[in-house]
Amino acid sequence: MGVSGCGKSTIGKLLSEELNIPFFDGDDFHPQSNIDKMSNGAPLNDEDRRGWLVTLNELAKKQLQENSCIIVCSALKTSYRAILGTDIQRQAKWVHLTGSFEQIFERLNQRENHFMTSDMLRSQFDTLEQPEDALLVNIGLKPEEIVEKITKEIDMKSEFGLFGLGVMGKSLSRNLAQKGFKISVFNREAKGTEEDVAINFKNAHKELELAQPFSNIEAFVNSLQTPRRIMLMVNAGKITDMVIEDLIPFLSYGDVLIDGGNSNYLKTKERYDYLKSKNIHFIGVGVSGGEEGALKGPSIMPGGNKETYNLVKPYLESIAAKDANNLPCCTYIGEEGSGHFVKMVHNGIEYVEMQLLAEVYTILKTIGKNPDEIADILESWKPKTDSYLLGITIDILRKKDGDDWLVNKIVDKAGNKGTGNWTTIATAQLGAPSTLIASALFARYTSFYKEERLQASENFNIKPSSFNLKTEDVLKGYQFARIINHYQGLKLISEAGKAYDWELNLNEIARIWTNGCIIKSDFMAELILVLKEDDNILKHKIIINQVKSLKPSINKLVSQCVLNELAVPCLSESVNFLNGYTTTNSSANIIQAQRDYFGAHTYQRTDDDSGKFHHTNWN
Amino acid sequence: MGVSGCGKSTIGKLLSEELNIPFFDGDDFHPQSNIDKMSNGAPLNDEDRRGWLVTLNELAKKQLQENSCIIVCSALKTSYRAILGTDIQRQAKWVHLTGSFEQIFERLNQRENHFMTSDMLRSQFDTLEQPEDALLVNIGLKPEEIVEKITKEIDMKSEFGLFGLGVMGKSLSRNLAQKGFKISVFNREAKGTEEDVAINFKNAHKELELAQPFSNIEAFVNSLQTPRRIMLMVNAGKITDMVIEDLIPFLSYGDVLIDGGNSNYLKTKERYDYLKSKNIHFIGVGVSGGEEGALKGPSIMPGGNKETYNLVKPYLESIAAKDANNLPCCTYIGEEGSGHFVKMVHNGIEYVEMQLLAEVYTILKTIGKNPDEIADILESWKPKTDSYLLGITIDILRKKDGDDWLVNKIVDKAGNKGTGNWTTIATAQLGAPSTLIASALFARYTSFYKEERLQASENFNIKPSSFNLKTEDVLKGYQFARIINHYQGLKLISEAGKAYDWELNLNEIARIWTNGCIIKSDFMAELILVLKEDDNILKHKIIINQVKSLKPSINKLVSQCVLNELAVPCLSESVNFLNGYTTTNSSANIIQAQRDYFGAHTYQRTDDDSGKFHHTNWN
Repeated sequence: MGVSGCGKSTIGKLLSEELNIPFFDGDDFHPQSNIDKMSNGAPLNDEDRRGWLVTLNELAKKQLQENSCIIVCSALKTSYRAILGTDIQRQAKWVHLTGSFEQIFERLNQRENHFMTSDMLRSQFDTLEQPEDALLVNIGLKPEEIVEKITKEIDMKSEFGLFGLGVMGKSLSRNLAQKGFKISVFNREAKGTEEDVAINFKNAHKELELAQPFSNIEAFVNSLQTPRRIMLMVNAGKITDMVIEDLIPFLSYGDVLIDGGNSNYLKTKERYDYLKSKNIHFIGVGVSGGEEGALKGPSIMPGGNKETYNLVKPYLESIAAKDANNLPCCTYIGEEGSGHFVKMVHNGIEYVEMQLLAEVYTILKTIGKNPDEIADILESWKPKTDSYLLGITIDILRKKDGDDWLVNKIVDKAGNKGTGNWTTIATAQLGAPSTLIASALFARYTSFYKEERLQASENFNIKPSSFNLKTEDVLKGYQFARIINHYQGLKLISEAGKAYDWELNLNEIARIWTNGCIIKSDFMAELILVLKEDDNILKHKIIINQVKSLKPSINKLVSQCVLNELAVPCLSESVNFLNGYTTTNSSANIIQAQRDYFGAHTYQRTDDDSGKFHHTNWN
Repeated sequence: MGVSGCGKSTIGKLLSEELNIPFFDGDDFHPQSNIDKMSNGAPLNDEDRRGWLVTLNELAKKQLQENSCIIVCSALKTSYRAILGTDIQRQAKWVHLTGSFEQIFERLNQRENHFMTSDMLRSQFDTLEQPEDALLVNIGLKPEEIVEKITKEIDMKSEFGLFGLGVMGKSLSRNLAQKGFKISVFNREAKGTEEDVAINFKNAHKELELAQPFSNIEAFVNSLQTPRRIMLMVNAGKITDMVIEDLIPFLSYGDVLIDGGNSNYLKTKERYDYLKSKNIHFIGVGVSGGEEGALKGPSIMPGGNKETYNLVKPYLESIAAKDANNLPCCTYIGEEGSGHFVKMVHNGIEYVEMQLLAEVYTILKTIGKNPDEIADILESWKPKTDSYLLGITIDILRKKDGDDWLVNKIVDKAGNKGTGNWTTIATAQLGAPSTLIASALFARYTSFYKEERLQASENFNIKPSSFNLKTEDVLKGYQFARIINHYQGLKLISEAGKAYDWELNLNEIARIWTNGCIIKSDFMAELILVLKEDDNILKHKIIINQVKSLKPSINKLVSQCVLNELAVPCLSESVNFLNGYTTTNSSANIIQAQRDYFGAHTYQRTDDDSGKFHHTNWN
């Protein structure tokens, strides 16, 4: 591509010879109507060009089925290139031959049989919308040099770089390679702990045959086509900042960094601003699915500048899981750190889903079931409430270790890596009570005080006793709490959208959570439709009816657990939350009176619609 | 005070004439034994000086009963001044006559009948420990000028400044004035909203007769004795920073700013560092007690540099409430923002205590009691579990508004001003689960969604029904939850102490919370002794026995509320917390297995004491 006179045809033909693929001049494909119009000296409008561009796109698609081809076309506008690249965004490689107005004007007027006024060329420059994803080659170089630069770039250079080969980085790299992308992978070299990670990784997997492994940052960066697309899969926090600093000296204008770690959403905004000052694009991308999801197709939540997202969209959408309609479980979330925010809440919801299954396990264990029996019960729930986490919990419960079940040998101190913590903080800061996420986080914290628990158990002699309970009530209580969990998580996202002015689409978010991620479930699929009607799922008839029919069971379940001294913090909080949420007159009047009593904080009155604040001398 | 030869006696005598109070030369009061020793050319040691300094202190105290006096004494060491100022720290005003070695050496040797070697003077300078709280006057001035400077400072200038005359600022100002301190008060002037606040305030209260009111910052600062002591009682957050910036140009080396607002403890550390770079002292002081407490004696929690605290200690301790042993409810908490941290947790505990009373109210209301009947019940609880908040809740419930009770007319949307929010964030960040504080915060948030609640109430048709319950069980459940609340709050403080390396004394903190503050209660007084044995109150026999005897009641209470669809988030969480806290084998093993399954996060085994981390291929 390039303006008239940039030398497209010359270079295209040379390149065609060099690469041994057919050459086509776009101008040869105009329909008769366009030719007539141009002969009459009338300029083509965009509508005239449409059919012609579609023809070129079809030509490219046909040629791609054989091998490849070179097409030259001025392709000045983004909308033209969109038509030309339809369905072949991944395969198409744009080369933009660039030069200054003077350079091209002089060259044009030196040619025989060619005449272009200064005005005509000027209008070409005015029309030109710079592509963001093209290889730029200046026409000042000799034709052979230009051809060499292009072939080198296309032949040798990788189109996508992956930085950091931990569990997730490795899986994503293999996923990209399996989708046919030429990638470069990087892992640092650390004596004794990380040696030859990248090269060994490449050699261990057949799909990485064409991948280029690196442990030198400069070589890694130089191995990539420009604009470079580099995905960081490193530890969130300071490491991410250090890696960014390490990369900056080797990056150039317009390169894109993609942070695929679980970074704090506020940090993502800061990094975006910082890198913008250096003309580097940055987007924060939430990736869920664990090791297996990352390999087979994760759920991907990209946030940041929309145009930047478009530069990496083909890659992310290709590797993402597919939903029931075969659409990628990857969608542009919104501005700033919204992708990381949504991923954070995803993890918060995940904390609760895990804790609820742990509570279900502890209830069934207390009423006398062994792990296999519990697995059988959970297996029988699948038709009613299947989810990825339910499935793996069944696998876990069935796993034997010698004569015993493996779960019985696992130390009951739950780890956490920050996202549950951040979600709880966000819920406190945004004033949107995701109480179950806090409960699940605190349950992990409490589990961590193992020594204190052992001593307390002895001191207080509180031991849950077995009790009568239908497993049907456990199922229903579990389903009830899951509804509240999803309500709260989505509410938090919706409140964040309002607070930060992100335009979020909750039903799209639910859709990309139906596959690839840890919280995928049948219920999530159900929520897509529910969320199309209202962001608040508790306002939807289907959900209201479910809640109503499940409520008696959760009441029974939680009250029995309390009476029998069994800790079920999330189940218990779910019922308290709904009871509070449906209270017409809450006891907050007492709190307002107390605040006014000791701190003169004032209160509003039910019989004063003006919303005025009143103060009383109470004593 | 000052080294030999600084001119103490000359200036002291002139001042005595000017102020018309007696003059005493400290040297005239040495006992015979000291005189003999000095006559023999032997230097006095600190032990020799002790009795003499006590004599001078007694002289000062005696003179103060009449009016006042001037005593001159070199008083070179901090320890000497401590003896001289015993019991009269507030009344004593130190004037330090300063000069360079050369200045004094020259002056000494010009005098008749006076001889001092260079070495002797040098040793005086070596011994001198600079006082932090003295008025410094350079001897280069003429004697009349020195006297004028001192009289002006003592006569006219206030010893303490209070910046910001909101509810708390006004009460603290009156409290200071009532204790006999000469104060300056400042409030900004804002057309229409804040006009003549300071002057009107002064005129409205007799005790402020000698107080100086200002609306000009420079004049306010200049009205204070140096080193200046200025307490900021302004809104926490950006306003505090703005006020500090406004003050800085007028402050001088060694002045002290006291932030008495509810500032975030991390901000307090930042402000300390910032002001240190400008040679201004800064301490963060938590003040609890509301309007009334601030006036009659609040509980005060100062944190920061210990020496800085000593500069303001006499003022803060004088205005603080007194505990059962007549000790001030004010104690140095620890370094950095620890004072504000402890105040923040105080407020967190307060949130829960308020919420528990609100839940008690809602239970008693649901089982059919009217506000007067509820007040009677609470009144009957006083001998068993009295507290300030219980008392005011009784007053509140009894307050009538026409034919109805006033509480029935208060809109049930509870406000919050940040500290409950911050405590929840701190609990998430420090990994110390103060679950009740989070529940109380979230209950306020939920109350705020009034419109949503009204609609949900209609949609779900959940209405708590009356049920059978002994009020004895309500009392015991309430007492149980209060124990858990105090455990969690103190645990959070103790964990913060470890995390930030503050040396905190929990039983002192409980002691200063026994009076003046919003969470003062009989139970708090009980905790002083408990905390002397262990920072963890749940390890103490007395508490263990209380918990055991209360547990059946909270079980009954919470299970009944759940069955009857009444929201009691804090009561409910208190029982879940203890059940979790006393669990030998929690369900966290399931969570660890899940994390290892999908994220290869590894787990530890009960049969591997090495603490090694294991990974399993689960499926």
